[in-house]
Amino acid sequence: MPIATPLTELLGITHPILSAPMDTIAGSRLTRAVSEAGGFGILGGGYGDRARLQTEAAELKGFAPFGIGFITWSLAQQPELLDIALDARPQAIMLSFGDPAPFAPRIKARGARLICQVQSEDMARQALAAGADILIAQGTEAGGHGASRTTVDIVPAIVDLAAGRVPVVAAGGIADGRGLAAMMMLGASGVLIGTRFYASVEANGAEEAKQRICAADSNDTVRGVVFDWSRNLFWPAPFTARSLVNDHVRRWTGREIELMQRASEVAVEYAAAKAAGNFEVAAVFAGEAVGLIHDIPPAAEIVERIATEAEQLLAGRRNSMTAAKNSSPSPGGGGKDEQPERPSHVA
Amino acid sequence: MPIATPLTELLGITHPILSAPMDTIAGSRLTRAVSEAGGFGILGGGYGDRARLQTEAAELKGFAPFGIGFITWSLAQQPELLDIALDARPQAIMLSFGDPAPFAPRIKARGARLICQVQSEDMARQALAAGADILIAQGTEAGGHGASRTTVDIVPAIVDLAAGRVPVVAAGGIADGRGLAAMMMLGASGVLIGTRFYASVEANGAEEAKQRICAADSNDTVRGVVFDWSRNLFWPAPFTARSLVNDHVRRWTGREIELMQRASEVAVEYAAAKAAGNFEVAAVFAGEAVGLIHDIPPAAEIVERIATEAEQLLAGRRNSMTAAKNSSPSPGGGGKDEQPERPSHVA
Repeated sequence: MPIATPLTELLGITHPILSAPMDTIAGSRLTRAVSEAGGFGILGGGYGDRARLQTEAAELKGFAPFGIGFITWSLAQQPELLDIALDARPQAIMLSFGDPAPFAPRIKARGARLICQVQSEDMARQALAAGADILIAQGTEAGGHGASRTTVDIVPAIVDLAAGRVPVVAAGGIADGRGLAAMMMLGASGVLIGTRFYASVEANGAEEAKQRICAADSNDTVRGVVFDWSRNLFWPAPFTARSLVNDHVRRWTGREIELMQRASEVAVEYAAAKAAGNFEVAAVFAGEAVGLIHDIPPAAEIVERIATEAEQLLAGRRNSMTAAKNSSPSPGGGGKDEQPERPSHVA
Repeated sequence: MPIATPLTELLGITHPILSAPMDTIAGSRLTRAVSEAGGFGILGGGYGDRARLQTEAAELKGFAPFGIGFITWSLAQQPELLDIALDARPQAIMLSFGDPAPFAPRIKARGARLICQVQSEDMARQALAAGADILIAQGTEAGGHGASRTTVDIVPAIVDLAAGRVPVVAAGGIADGRGLAAMMMLGASGVLIGTRFYASVEANGAEEAKQRICAADSNDTVRGVVFDWSRNLFWPAPFTARSLVNDHVRRWTGREIELMQRASEVAVEYAAAKAAGNFEVAAVFAGEAVGLIHDIPPAAEIVERIATEAEQLLAGRRNSMTAAKNSSPSPGGGGKDEQPERPSHVA
């Protein structure tokens, strides 16, 4: 039975699984695939490419439920993009990285839900004051932009602060049903997942980027400013971006001041390498959950796998226990049917 | 019904809750209180104070099950301390921060279990090769010494690596039953908890230190080398220590090279401040879970609270759901009975 939560009720979805509005990676194709599978796809609004937003949003119009996500400080530079997004009649607008207050009235007036991603209690209070309908508590494990608090820390903190007024969604480091089930134990009503959906058929990313995600383990990501500064993007504090480690990161980490001084020159080199598809220079933004990702399936299969595994962990523990060797319940071993028998000294 | 796991079976305990061997904070009093409550108390072996170890271990002798924990690289400087520990007949020896191989044969020969705390896959492989009976996967959220990977990342990684051969215990950022339940969803068989037990009646810490833990929120901790270097302790990489932020940390963070150059002088100042109980200089080693800690109860009450909340979350979800306003199951809201009713727009 699908996991019903205040989040699934509010958004009218089957599974409490949202796909992150990853810049250009989360286009209409991925968004639609996630939503059609019973999750909630969120189109990436990116850094304000109006033509792209119009095209992609039009692909989704009339097809509900879905969301559109913006980088709030970037949207503030082109606030009219919000109207383009709202014209596509999304079920929700997701705002991250900035004060949502200036945009909240327009969103609400058009009948859309306001989803605010936060990285601290202060940001959560600001979002609630602006009228957020859903909070996303994002841990530092997340790919792309985020801050420093960890998922295990920030999720219960925001759950306690929200105190049941709005559903809280967990983000950062989640790529399988274990993660969804764990976040629900912490009090979340669902999860927002990025990197796992990057490595899907429908994501707009390059095939090599997806392959690199599959090949990476959790030691292969780093959070910093190198890729932003190499694109002449200077994000406001406290936000930095997590990416896979590559030659470019190794070259510039620890030399960020020099990078800033040579930003124009590096930006030219960087853009050229990116255009050439050279991923030892170009960024693959990805989270710590890369260690859990080993294939590039259709997004619908990802939704199904995560939902099914979490459902089994949350509801089917009794079943897995009766199958266990020991007569007593063994929750720690539940749901991982592929595990070998425990050694005799555990019996 | 208590949560039975491979860990509880292996150690012969009621609840899958281990107390961390926090240096001098985890003395025989705390160790015994945790074990008497059905958890597994682990005496802190600290930095090799032989007289203290003899006295404290003697207090526990004949009283099972309990463990004794060592800083492995410190134990390597006084390997005879292991015999003192083993003479007290602990159920297990816990080794952290170094290669356990030189000590494993003696531990096993005396019939004790070997618990190894690890912060990476490589360390886990090393521990398994040495014959570890239990792995503790420690996230960066933990108080005191640790490394950089987060709990949500490292726990499933080590669970997958262990592949059921030995139980995996989660550590770092856990202070309540939500955390225990979440870690079990990630595949752990139990949790190791430090800071929550620091703020207990039986911990050896100063009352003011405990009060500071209660007053702190999760933004008030930092991981670094300032307190180690201020005590002339130079830990091997990659280990750093998480503590509460105080004047001393603010003074020296970002000036670590100068601190190293002036280490002798600072150590004198630091020792004097510590002796005087000045906690704006002296360290309170504590983890990110401080945000979840608001009181200083007896350790038995902590064990009971965590176990009961986790049991309810893991097994009693159906009950909490039937009490919910909505007819459909609402796992995200389960277990937090103190939460106000959800707002009408969620219905």
